[in-house]
Amino acid sequence: MRPSRRQPDEMRAISFERGVSKHAEGSCLVRFGDTHVLCTASLEEKVPAWLRNSGKGWVTAEYGMLPRSTGERMRREAASGKQGGRTLEIQRLVGRSLRSVIDLEALGEMQITVDCDVLQADGGTRTAAITGGFVALHDCLSWMQARQMVTVERVLKDHVAAISCGIYDGTPVLDLDYAEDSAAETDANFVMTGKGGIVEIQGTAEGAPFTEEEFHELLRLARKGIFRLVELQKMAVS
Amino acid sequence: MRPSRRQPDEMRAISFERGVSKHAEGSCLVRFGDTHVLCTASLEEKVPAWLRNSGKGWVTAEYGMLPRSTGERMRREAASGKQGGRTLEIQRLVGRSLRSVIDLEALGEMQITVDCDVLQADGGTRTAAITGGFVALHDCLSWMQARQMVTVERVLKDHVAAISCGIYDGTPVLDLDYAEDSAAETDANFVMTGKGGIVEIQGTAEGAPFTEEEFHELLRLARKGIFRLVELQKMAVS
Amino acid sequence: MRPSRRQPDEMRAISFERGVSKHAEGSCLVRFGDTHVLCTASLEEKVPAWLRNSGKGWVTAEYGMLPRSTGERMRREAASGKQGGRTLEIQRLVGRSLRSVIDLEALGEMQITVDCDVLQADGGTRTAAITGGFVALHDCLSWMQARQMVTVERVLKDHVAAISCGIYDGTPVLDLDYAEDSAAETDANFVMTGKGGIVEIQGTAEGAPFTEEEFHELLRLARKGIFRLVELQKMAVS
Amino acid sequence: MRPSRRQPDEMRAISFERGVSKHAEGSCLVRFGDTHVLCTASLEEKVPAWLRNSGKGWVTAEYGMLPRSTGERMRREAASGKQGGRTLEIQRLVGRSLRSVIDLEALGEMQITVDCDVLQADGGTRTAAITGGFVALHDCLSWMQARQMVTVERVLKDHVAAISCGIYDGTPVLDLDYAEDSAAETDANFVMTGKGGIVEIQGTAEGAPFTEEEFHELLRLARKGIFRLVELQKMAVS
Amino acid sequence: MRPSRRQPDEMRAISFERGVSKHAEGSCLVRFGDTHVLCTASLEEKVPAWLRNSGKGWVTAEYGMLPRSTGERMRREAASGKQGGRTLEIQRLVGRSLRSVIDLEALGEMQITVDCDVLQADGGTRTAAITGGFVALHDCLSWMQARQMVTVERVLKDHVAAISCGIYDGTPVLDLDYAEDSAAETDANFVMTGKGGIVEIQGTAEGAPFTEEEFHELLRLARKGIFRLVELQKMAVS
Amino acid sequence: MRPSRRQPDEMRAISFERGVSKHAEGSCLVRFGDTHVLCTASLEEKVPAWLRNSGKGWVTAEYGMLPRSTGERMRREAASGKQGGRTLEIQRLVGRSLRSVIDLEALGEMQITVDCDVLQADGGTRTAAITGGFVALHDCLSWMQARQMVTVERVLKDHVAAISCGIYDGTPVLDLDYAEDSAAETDANFVMTGKGGIVEIQGTAEGAPFTEEEFHELLRLARKGIFRLVELQKMAVS
Repeated sequence: MRPSRRQPDEMRAISFERGVSKHAEGSCLVRFGDTHVLCTASLEEKVPAWLRNSGKGWVTAEYGMLPRSTGERMRREAASGKQGGRTLEIQRLVGRSLRSVIDLEALGEMQITVDCDVLQADGGTRTAAITGGFVALHDCLSWMQARQMVTVERVLKDHVAAISCGIYDGTPVLDLDYAEDSAAETDANFVMTGKGGIVEIQGTAEGAPFTEEEFHELLRLARKGIFRLVELQKMAVS
Repeated sequence: MRPSRRQPDEMRAISFERGVSKHAEGSCLVRFGDTHVLCTASLEEKVPAWLRNSGKGWVTAEYGMLPRSTGERMRREAASGKQGGRTLEIQRLVGRSLRSVIDLEALGEMQITVDCDVLQADGGTRTAAITGGFVALHDCLSWMQARQMVTVERVLKDHVAAISCGIYDGTPVLDLDYAEDSAAETDANFVMTGKGGIVEIQGTAEGAPFTEEEFHELLRLARKGIFRLVELQKMAVS
Repeated sequence: MRPSRRQPDEMRAISFERGVSKHAEGSCLVRFGDTHVLCTASLEEKVPAWLRNSGKGWVTAEYGMLPRSTGERMRREAASGKQGGRTLEIQRLVGRSLRSVIDLEALGEMQITVDCDVLQADGGTRTAAITGGFVALHDCLSWMQARQMVTVERVLKDHVAAISCGIYDGTPVLDLDYAEDSAAETDANFVMTGKGGIVEIQGTAEGAPFTEEEFHELLRLARKGIFRLVELQKMAVS
Repeated sequence: MRPSRRQPDEMRAISFERGVSKHAEGSCLVRFGDTHVLCTASLEEKVPAWLRNSGKGWVTAEYGMLPRSTGERMRREAASGKQGGRTLEIQRLVGRSLRSVIDLEALGEMQITVDCDVLQADGGTRTAAITGGFVALHDCLSWMQARQMVTVERVLKDHVAAISCGIYDGTPVLDLDYAEDSAAETDANFVMTGKGGIVEIQGTAEGAPFTEEEFHELLRLARKGIFRLVELQKMAVS
Repeated sequence: MRPSRRQPDEMRAISFERGVSKHAEGSCLVRFGDTHVLCTASLEEKVPAWLRNSGKGWVTAEYGMLPRSTGERMRREAASGKQGGRTLEIQRLVGRSLRSVIDLEALGEMQITVDCDVLQADGGTRTAAITGGFVALHDCLSWMQARQMVTVERVLKDHVAAISCGIYDGTPVLDLDYAEDSAAETDANFVMTGKGGIVEIQGTAEGAPFTEEEFHELLRLARKGIFRLVELQKMAVS
Repeated sequence: MRPSRRQPDEMRAISFERGVSKHAEGSCLVRFGDTHVLCTASLEEKVPAWLRNSGKGWVTAEYGMLPRSTGERMRREAASGKQGGRTLEIQRLVGRSLRSVIDLEALGEMQITVDCDVLQADGGTRTAAITGGFVALHDCLSWMQARQMVTVERVLKDHVAAISCGIYDGTPVLDLDYAEDSAAETDANFVMTGKGGIVEIQGTAEGAPFTEEEFHELLRLARKGIFRLVELQKMAVS
């Protein structure tokens, strides 16, 4: 039995609340149960130095956690003077994942920054950030299309979403919350596109190593979860 | 006529949403119109080094803005590696203001950190942070009282709230939003207690210097606004 | 009785020593009793990026304390790797105050940086910095006028000076020294122009909140002190 | 045809040079072709704060690249004032991987830091660091055993090694060098134990998403490579 | 002919102004012509961690330049977030030089920090800092002796002073000012004790290498200058 | 008797291993006994801002120590967020020393950065860095000559090498290793050219001051050592 009393292949309640920011070109407050991430997509008419005059644009992501998004208050990264390794690792992952479904040439020389700020954390913040960041990014592109800057369907090649899986008490389960994540023997994150292509796989043995069979089972669960997330994204943005 | 079409002495719609954080001992999402600040109060059983073995506690505050809380995306302070002067100035003000109504001896050797994170900014974030921070602090003390750690009414001596005023187009007005603040000739922030005592006054001439009479008029408006804010706080926490 | 044995409305001995720096375009060692601040004004033929090609200049200030300017040695900010919140707050205040009497268009696209370094501190360093910084700024403009770069009276619209007041042992007093400042219930800083306009007001209750009447009395004292400071500035620069 | 003219399942020449440091308790210069990583294991009789009095020890890793280990000189991280996201990500991975085969209780309250410094880079530095870091760690434990501090076989539960794989020009290949890595469509790193358990999987689509079948093929290649690496480790340390 | 019109072996006007700080246990404003350095000695009843419970004390130095102590305004090190290499090099030199005449055991477990802040620079700031720092240190020890904490003559084993020399336009000259220093082919700093022992020698060829004979001539000049500086120190502190 | 059992004027075994880096334009692994420094020279077609359009090039150096190059593991400077004073001092010395034999105009507007990374330390790392850095620099210039970018003999005016000397147990000795250096009363570093000109002298009394006669003896030893080092450099690069 999972602490959350969910079935092994059952995700938490997922919701996307769009247009939550008065200022951002696209925004989405994504909830995976008690994990709440505010995603905003900001358009800037400049690109990183290495892309200037290339005709290509860029999509990047930044990630942060509010100090009391967690059970114990964490030190504010702005106060400690640097972003920790976990933060940098996650924002690199979110950026790569979102770029995997963007045609940077069709975007043109502009940059979209997707900020993912965790208001409340209960496990799975990085996968929620990718999944909700996609919605914010989509809405930013729609905003641009309304101004004849791009055609959404030419820039956005597919959906992208992410989910965590793990082996909890010997059983592969989908969408770990914090209590499950802390106790899981193995923890894996999967990022896939709407068409089912794999963009990123990260699997880590927290305790004993895992087997190939276990990993396949996690992948099977993830595929199922991401299929559902993409359905929900489609409902949200249509 | 104010850009907001409000009367000179009319505040924006104010609301306090309590208990918005699953983790924090006290929390409040405060809204002054389109300015939304998430305040959490976190209890820690340690105090700064200079208070150890003094029998006294401490209340401190930290302040941050999400990168796209503003019209143009701001650089994330965690990424730039330090908190700017404005941030430090505001969090010092919020901390001083909240401490003005706390009996640190009655609190005992514990520290409460009030984090004020601006989700959306439209002027007056520091005054919203103080006003909402009070509610989060109150609820943290209630949480402690429920565990026989303190008696709320012994620790919390009074209410405290804050409002901005300014001279807009020659007229003193209450509770500036961003459009008004940008164009105001004079900008002032007032922090007062429920009994009407003044805790902090900050007035700045943005353009031409202001007169004593103008300043008195701002103070009169502030007093009226803070009286109303305290009423709203009372309704919220009762 | 004040620790300094001064009358409530009596300032410390004030002096301005001009031309103390061989290198700076303008300089002034200002003394408010035992508070000694070395102010230098440095001209640079460049402006911050946001003013380029605007035809307007800029005046800014920086503030620092020598490590042993204080009773206990403070850590050197260069060694600790950042300027503290108090430093940033003060240098923002000094810069705003000095700009309040400058016509930035008449200055033209040049920047003057006023460095205020506290050689010895005994309370009131920020108000001494503003008052002495004005003299250094004046002399820098005279230096420029001597080279046909500007006309002083077109750039410098008025005098500006500052003083602290506080409520000490129940009595409003003018120009707090360190012993008085440490024990004052309320502490306020006022910045005014030669014509009596108010540029900045900052009042803080250190202990119990203060009343409107007390604040008016502080303002009355400040007006008197600043009137005298401006007279002394005029004597110094004429 | 691979740029390196190797067969798809052919690794580069691998060597382990032990005892290369006069000072370190264990050391190994590992070479995967032109990728050379100097690994040292340093014993310290202290553990991180959260392990004090727990009876458990810790193994951690740090990673760095010499500025001209790469084709273009990189900025020295010590000079830029921080470790980049890639560095932090790699050293977290190396630390986790090495800890996966250590019994921290059998180690006792001591910390071993494995420094992995890239003298020359040609792709696969993180997998070389893990594979060579294991040898340095082993030799540090032998050094400790010679002083009756631990029993190697009780602390070291298994071997651990790592290899990269990728899809190059449509073909899954083993042990990418820099030229192959830059052009690969998909890039994956695998960490496994001597008994074949999986410790870590990281797969990233650089261009188009990859399929489950492709991923299985990469995993199959990795298993083969790691089997060989463990054989070589055994020869090296016996 | 030297730019300063001094004879090759002629120093600038040297003066020591003692007791310039109200707060410091010892202080001295030293002037070597237009080079003015404010030196304060601060006593703290703690020592660095590596000396705790050793019975030995420590003397250390810090060095800084006011931003406009120089011809062109320099960036404030506190603002740039770190002390530059030149600053660190100088303060290490000043600390070593002062410690060379201190009996750290006779001092006992206390630390004296000598802060050397350059108010105005015209060449030779590091040698002025050592020479004036000695006077501040002496007066700090006298302050301690007056409180029965130490016996000055047991702690202070000798005098120490420093001077620069250089080869200017082919001629060895003593005590370079900025104009001479900028144009000198060779620049050397010497630190010696009152008894004539050498504590530190630093000689640098700015352009062409120098010969052993030239170096001997610089050393001869330095010896003469330092002999005079020690005489002046003795007059100052007696 | 020296701990190393060497004669007072006997250096350690010296070797230069060229071409150790696949990527760098010039490289040399220099060994002074157990002190091993990897030197790489990297060519960049840009110069520091102050040299742009001057027609002149620049040679600079950076220095680092691997964390476990020393007896006790040192903290990684990249992790501590800054380069220490000793590091900055050494890299400034290495850069000045190498520039002393370069004709920057003949080099043309290009920059060569010589990185000196200590793989293993046993005293004398800075002098090894200069001596080996020269070889890497020479080979970089040869690489450039092979591409018709410069003529080596026009850019490289002479050899440059460095050695340490010290007074150990009352006897002047050449080329201190760590054990000798730790116990030496006086420690000096000398940098000279192939023609015998002096580029840099740094002598420090670690305990009691030293005499002029002792210093001359150290200089005599250094001259002998550097003569030999230059012979070895010539053999290495010819």
